[in-house]
Amino acid sequence: MSTRTLIRGGLVVTAAEELHADVLIEDGRIAALAARGTEAAAAWTADRVIDASEKYVVPGGVDAHTHMELPFGGTFASDSFETGTRAAAWGGTTTIVDFAVQTVGRSLRSGLDAWYAKADGKCAIDYAFHMILSDVNDRTLKEMDLLVEEGITSFKLFMAYPGVFYSDDGQILRAMQRSAGNGGLIMMHAENGIAIDVLVEQALQRGETDPRHHGEVRKVLLEAEATHRAIQLARVAGAPLYVVHVSAEEAVAELAAARDKGLPVFGETCPQYLFLSTDNLAEPDFEGAKYVCSTPLRPREHQAALWRGLRTNDLQVVSTDHCPFCFTGQKELGRGDFSKIPNGLPGVENRMDLLHQAVVDGHISRRRWIEIACATPARMFGLYPKKGTIAPGADADVVVYDPAATQTISAGTHHMNVDYSAYEGRQVTGRVETVLSRGEVVIEGREFTGRAGHGVYTPRATCQYLD
Amino acid sequence: MSTRTLIRGGLVVTAAEELHADVLIEDGRIAALAARGTEAAAAWTADRVIDASEKYVVPGGVDAHTHMELPFGGTFASDSFETGTRAAAWGGTTTIVDFAVQTVGRSLRSGLDAWYAKADGKCAIDYAFHMILSDVNDRTLKEMDLLVEEGITSFKLFMAYPGVFYSDDGQILRAMQRSAGNGGLIMMHAENGIAIDVLVEQALQRGETDPRHHGEVRKVLLEAEATHRAIQLARVAGAPLYVVHVSAEEAVAELAAARDKGLPVFGETCPQYLFLSTDNLAEPDFEGAKYVCSTPLRPREHQAALWRGLRTNDLQVVSTDHCPFCFTGQKELGRGDFSKIPNGLPGVENRMDLLHQAVVDGHISRRRWIEIACATPARMFGLYPKKGTIAPGADADVVVYDPAATQTISAGTHHMNVDYSAYEGRQVTGRVETVLSRGEVVIEGREFTGRAGHGVYTPRATCQYLD
Amino acid sequence: MSTRTLIRGGLVVTAAEELHADVLIEDGRIAALAARGTEAAAAWTADRVIDASEKYVVPGGVDAHTHMELPFGGTFASDSFETGTRAAAWGGTTTIVDFAVQTVGRSLRSGLDAWYAKADGKCAIDYAFHMILSDVNDRTLKEMDLLVEEGITSFKLFMAYPGVFYSDDGQILRAMQRSAGNGGLIMMHAENGIAIDVLVEQALQRGETDPRHHGEVRKVLLEAEATHRAIQLARVAGAPLYVVHVSAEEAVAELAAARDKGLPVFGETCPQYLFLSTDNLAEPDFEGAKYVCSTPLRPREHQAALWRGLRTNDLQVVSTDHCPFCFTGQKELGRGDFSKIPNGLPGVENRMDLLHQAVVDGHISRRRWIEIACATPARMFGLYPKKGTIAPGADADVVVYDPAATQTISAGTHHMNVDYSAYEGRQVTGRVETVLSRGEVVIEGREFTGRAGHGVYTPRATCQYLD
Amino acid sequence: MSTRTLIRGGLVVTAAEELHADVLIEDGRIAALAARGTEAAAAWTADRVIDASEKYVVPGGVDAHTHMELPFGGTFASDSFETGTRAAAWGGTTTIVDFAVQTVGRSLRSGLDAWYAKADGKCAIDYAFHMILSDVNDRTLKEMDLLVEEGITSFKLFMAYPGVFYSDDGQILRAMQRSAGNGGLIMMHAENGIAIDVLVEQALQRGETDPRHHGEVRKVLLEAEATHRAIQLARVAGAPLYVVHVSAEEAVAELAAARDKGLPVFGETCPQYLFLSTDNLAEPDFEGAKYVCSTPLRPREHQAALWRGLRTNDLQVVSTDHCPFCFTGQKELGRGDFSKIPNGLPGVENRMDLLHQAVVDGHISRRRWIEIACATPARMFGLYPKKGTIAPGADADVVVYDPAATQTISAGTHHMNVDYSAYEGRQVTGRVETVLSRGEVVIEGREFTGRAGHGVYTPRATCQYLD
Repeated sequence: MSTRTLIRGGLVVTAAEELHADVLIEDGRIAALAARGTEAAAAWTADRVIDASEKYVVPGGVDAHTHMELPFGGTFASDSFETGTRAAAWGGTTTIVDFAVQTVGRSLRSGLDAWYAKADGKCAIDYAFHMILSDVNDRTLKEMDLLVEEGITSFKLFMAYPGVFYSDDGQILRAMQRSAGNGGLIMMHAENGIAIDVLVEQALQRGETDPRHHGEVRKVLLEAEATHRAIQLARVAGAPLYVVHVSAEEAVAELAAARDKGLPVFGETCPQYLFLSTDNLAEPDFEGAKYVCSTPLRPREHQAALWRGLRTNDLQVVSTDHCPFCFTGQKELGRGDFSKIPNGLPGVENRMDLLHQAVVDGHISRRRWIEIACATPARMFGLYPKKGTIAPGADADVVVYDPAATQTISAGTHHMNVDYSAYEGRQVTGRVETVLSRGEVVIEGREFTGRAGHGVYTPRATCQYLD
Repeated sequence: MSTRTLIRGGLVVTAAEELHADVLIEDGRIAALAARGTEAAAAWTADRVIDASEKYVVPGGVDAHTHMELPFGGTFASDSFETGTRAAAWGGTTTIVDFAVQTVGRSLRSGLDAWYAKADGKCAIDYAFHMILSDVNDRTLKEMDLLVEEGITSFKLFMAYPGVFYSDDGQILRAMQRSAGNGGLIMMHAENGIAIDVLVEQALQRGETDPRHHGEVRKVLLEAEATHRAIQLARVAGAPLYVVHVSAEEAVAELAAARDKGLPVFGETCPQYLFLSTDNLAEPDFEGAKYVCSTPLRPREHQAALWRGLRTNDLQVVSTDHCPFCFTGQKELGRGDFSKIPNGLPGVENRMDLLHQAVVDGHISRRRWIEIACATPARMFGLYPKKGTIAPGADADVVVYDPAATQTISAGTHHMNVDYSAYEGRQVTGRVETVLSRGEVVIEGREFTGRAGHGVYTPRATCQYLD
Repeated sequence: MSTRTLIRGGLVVTAAEELHADVLIEDGRIAALAARGTEAAAAWTADRVIDASEKYVVPGGVDAHTHMELPFGGTFASDSFETGTRAAAWGGTTTIVDFAVQTVGRSLRSGLDAWYAKADGKCAIDYAFHMILSDVNDRTLKEMDLLVEEGITSFKLFMAYPGVFYSDDGQILRAMQRSAGNGGLIMMHAENGIAIDVLVEQALQRGETDPRHHGEVRKVLLEAEATHRAIQLARVAGAPLYVVHVSAEEAVAELAAARDKGLPVFGETCPQYLFLSTDNLAEPDFEGAKYVCSTPLRPREHQAALWRGLRTNDLQVVSTDHCPFCFTGQKELGRGDFSKIPNGLPGVENRMDLLHQAVVDGHISRRRWIEIACATPARMFGLYPKKGTIAPGADADVVVYDPAATQTISAGTHHMNVDYSAYEGRQVTGRVETVLSRGEVVIEGREFTGRAGHGVYTPRATCQYLD
Repeated sequence: MSTRTLIRGGLVVTAAEELHADVLIEDGRIAALAARGTEAAAAWTADRVIDASEKYVVPGGVDAHTHMELPFGGTFASDSFETGTRAAAWGGTTTIVDFAVQTVGRSLRSGLDAWYAKADGKCAIDYAFHMILSDVNDRTLKEMDLLVEEGITSFKLFMAYPGVFYSDDGQILRAMQRSAGNGGLIMMHAENGIAIDVLVEQALQRGETDPRHHGEVRKVLLEAEATHRAIQLARVAGAPLYVVHVSAEEAVAELAAARDKGLPVFGETCPQYLFLSTDNLAEPDFEGAKYVCSTPLRPREHQAALWRGLRTNDLQVVSTDHCPFCFTGQKELGRGDFSKIPNGLPGVENRMDLLHQAVVDGHISRRRWIEIACATPARMFGLYPKKGTIAPGADADVVVYDPAATQTISAGTHHMNVDYSAYEGRQVTGRVETVLSRGEVVIEGREFTGRAGHGVYTPRATCQYLD
């Protein structure tokens, strides 16, 4: 007889439905849902019963964009797979898709294996990998095919960071052509880095060294331009495209125009673009450095376009691009030269709560919250229906969420391994109460009840929006 | 103890999920779903077990646009509520939303009551009503509020048919303003009827009397113009808008532009625009009359834009606009004058099959089939989640669908009360096998096992896309 | 031997050229231009020599939209043809195209003859007529052909003012079809008057009776909507279109979109939309009434779009829509009910100066000033090259303009027969010095030296943008 | 007393006017124009009188894009400045602007001086230079300022031809920033050459070596993409932009969108894109090589968009991109490898005639012919009003054009130094009769009466569309 857990009395919210239903878990998977009050529901017994009355029962979050332990700018992102996935669990996220990095001149294989090793036995929740292509050539193109078969079905390219991750348009085109054949999905950092680097150099020469200049040189038009270019290259290649961390209204417009034509073009944004702005980058005493990431924070006016894009489905996913660096010792590397500030923000713990706040604020509906934070990232990256929904047969990654609780976000209370919060002092309504990962309770009663190594590597199918 | 039916072994397809799951019905409602092979599923017993192995288990179709017994052009649509809803059941549709008609100069109440009376005790499946507003004035505006409370939450206006159903822009604006306040949804027949009537008269004067001229005078630009105008009036009123029977690429473009702005604007198309064209209107020997409807069939090139609109969600619903007139004796009224041909096509029985064929042909995915034919019309018109999905708590309106069966559409075998089929001889893959309406089997083994009067009137909530 | 006048030493500015050239006039026409300092120039003698050193020599203005003595709202525009054309001359305008009005139920002929009679023998400068079509029917459509032959080659229709000038879309379509055949140009007042009248009535019911509410009810979206509709009707008819008094950014966008498609669609704006705004409509003590006209003044932000449209040639003409009503006794008719304020502003005397100020302010180039104020209106309405340019063979309608003089616009000094100025107290740089009409000096040394009756009726060819 | 030439009895056609006027030339410049039949005209005497009865008198053509003696692909364009400018004169073109080339690693100065030397004493007509920037760096940026002062006011950059002329986006941005400061105009070859080179290599690997594959790999989307990118970079730099040899409908759309925003963005097309197509590239027996140029010829459907762009002023200039290579010995270098075919077509002699044919065919008006071929190129590149018009003070570069003559274009009769004609056998209506360059007759009676060295180098002012 299997181990059974029963979640009783909650409102089950998925991307598609809102149901007053009880959820029966057998051996780590959702076995059944029954309408409250039916004989079917009444008949169920379980080893463990969780009372979800007046709570939401939602799928565990899927964060499709994290960078645990990422080497960047001479330092490393401060969250390890252990600390980062534990913090994710605290925030109601039960799956992350992190990025393995190819080193220029070496194989994808060696990069991927290094990341397998970093994560192995450390994670509190399930995880998967995208692959960063730093060096597109005949050999790595062939490796792409093998990785797709192995469950690494998405590949990130950069139009920014010349000399580091940058690929030129010919390399991009070739990778897209390959993905058109092998089913992989190209993820694009869309900023014209060649032009930006000219502006960076000019700004520094003018003595503009403060963090706010990071936002000024990485211009909206250069994000929109790169977005347009990536779309056109994808059309030439006959390949789909997923644009990461969209921040500018004009970039959303490029995505919308492409989607109106029926092109398989997708866009992700992140909480920092929805809730923060260049006002933060301009905070005095170098505090703006806390908010340095690329694409950069934009003037406040862009937020309305991002929310609208999420409502109109011109943007489909909200990920965190979680890539934390401590203010002390890490962000400080860029004092006197904004271009030396490590790029990245912490956020993996805050995403589900911030997006629930958006429900409270009327930006999105309850179902859309789950769609952009759970269901669509799972589908986009080949994890559905194991992840991203509450349906018979799915993994029992479930969050009991209290929509009425209030909390204050703070570095003093968060669980990410970083010495500041990008949302310090912000009050939000809604809080994770209980989190199950494949049926095991990992958060309960404001305690972490999971363990490093519970989370397993999850190979992925190809993008499910291309069926 | 309740009556229990169990559907075993099928692939449950909803707008959101594809699940290998068993479906348990208690007393006419979906009680529970359990993943195949779980202990939960194995434990279920039932009074009746339906084997759905190798079949799809899908929600019953929701056809949001039918005109049973409609008086038009001096005659009546040839399907009664009895024959029409029976044919709907044969075709896997378990809910229709028909149009009650206000007579000019009389109250909404009297029109609605007349339609209640026509349908009462006749229907094989559940039904609801929209209200056609023929005469917008202070009194009828007040009646709108009452009807919304009563469950008539959508109101159709016509920019075409001057002297019959036509409302001018001032009347339209006032009705939209009222709906902005009371939660009603304005449904618009968007064609510039004033301009079209000039072209009709000119064509007839030139001796252009054949059915194909019906398509020529009702110009694409005049559909697009009216669509644009309706959208702008809705913006002025601060009201949502649903455009019925969109047929032209240029009209889809107007909807897409509005939706990119985040406006609550929705569009419906119909199978006839997706599968037929002006080639049919040009069939010789007056056979073109069979295809006369308004908006008219368009040149074949428009079909690609409609399919694309369905994929990009610029069109959300496929309804039939079922409004059959027999060729003999009815369509023939327009011999020698196309403007006298009663406008309308039969189709309520064919919609689910034709759209499944679109899945086979690669136009849409399986889930999108259910979304545009079941889930979205239900949500759009306030019937969700009772109708349009298979989820715990929903009405047990369920179709067991054989995706591998083939059939040939023909007036010789269809069940609609009309002497021709608009799709005569067309082979399609897929066929309805078993249909349940609130748990009762109404189609089984190629027999109608239901009865007139089983179907009940279903009051509706307001549009659920505006939450 | 002919009478010869020689204008020496000026900078000749036309739509196309800026030339240091002397201008020789023989018998009322431009005979020749010669480059300064050439033997050809040196050889010229004349009866009269005008020194234009440090001055511009520009074509006399062509104001294609005036309403002298117009009956409106129970009163008459306060400028007669005598006072109005004299004021025009003062302002450097040497041709007006006024609007003859058809009375509903009567012939075009009778309306036109009435306007011929009003103007005959009264005008200080040359004049021509458009025809307002108040009543499109079989008979008036036939009359259109005759009028085109007679030199009345443009016809104004109204989508506003139901019950007065309003034509429905069928009438508009028929008039456009006729103009497509006879070479006439349809001029459109593009506002959805049917919808606006609903908003007017509702505003008055709410007690919103002040002049500023005139601007609020005549919504931007309803101008843009009508503009779009007029364009689509013109496409259906295969006819060109000229939209009068464009005031809203969204309307400019409709014109731009049409022109990008290569459609023969043209747009006019007026100084009041370029220099005034809803701030003026909101002036206290009923002073806002001075600025009541339709289309209404718009929020200040729209001005940038109008200037841009003039630069990008999405707008081609600046006319005045001169239609003055005295504040005392006329505008006052609307105290307590903005809908009773006579619609119209004075401006025929101010146009050339205000647009020169736009040159000074950097909105447009010197050549563009002449193009939008002289050359294009002349071409648009079939008066070129007699009017609108300084070229051999053209009528000697010439203005010597002092670009360095300054003046203050004021009712205290203007020559229009109206008791206020819409631009009271505004300082502008540039002033008319000498004005010639067909070679006769009509303004010189701050004196009017012309006479009523000098101006002659000028029949027009068809629109010269359609060659 | 000066030398006087009088052109009597013609129809003077400029970009702005069509005048029945006599043209008086004194000492190489237009002294005066007088209306036919005036006393002023009658009084004129001259040393030489040219009878232009029933002829057009038009400005000499300005071809703003030629490549005499250009080194390319291991060979040289086959027309020297002597043969090329003589052929230009035969075709009614009296000014060319050729491209001096910077060699990578060397100064602009040395490249420019080399071109001065090539042209000096050789030209039959006046000439000027643009500068090709092959190597943007701190030193060459400073040189740009000096060249602008010297009369080299435009600079061409390439987004194509990596390893040869290619500049990356950073170099482009820097050059644009510099031009924003010094008044220079950046001319852009807008094709994504990095991506194209990938497609070229792949095509060759597949054995696709014929000339038609040249057209297939240089994709429309990659021209449109580069056009969009260049526009965005120009916006970032705050600089104007002139896109050379626009060939694709989608690229025109990018220009139109930019111009609707009021951006100072300009576009040039060439006769080969207006009159030829990929059908020519597909001619058998390697004959397609005659039509190999970049951007490439496009499918015939693109022509309509180019003509429309010329009418709507989204394209402003028609130049030839004259760059002839003999079929024998030069084009043949690419047998078996289309990428080795020298890029370029002959055309400097044919432009005025082909565009007059477009007048005959109804694509453009007579005035627009002169505008796109004479007046606008002169204004765009700072040669107006010396060049590009017939007005008092202008250089007496005049063509007497017979609009009724017919001719057949052929290598057998043309004067360009190349062994084929791209328009072989094409009959056109209209022919150059007499050509004057600064008052000297250089073509008369089907004879070349000019001489090498008559033409002088003409320094240029900055772009006159930016006043």
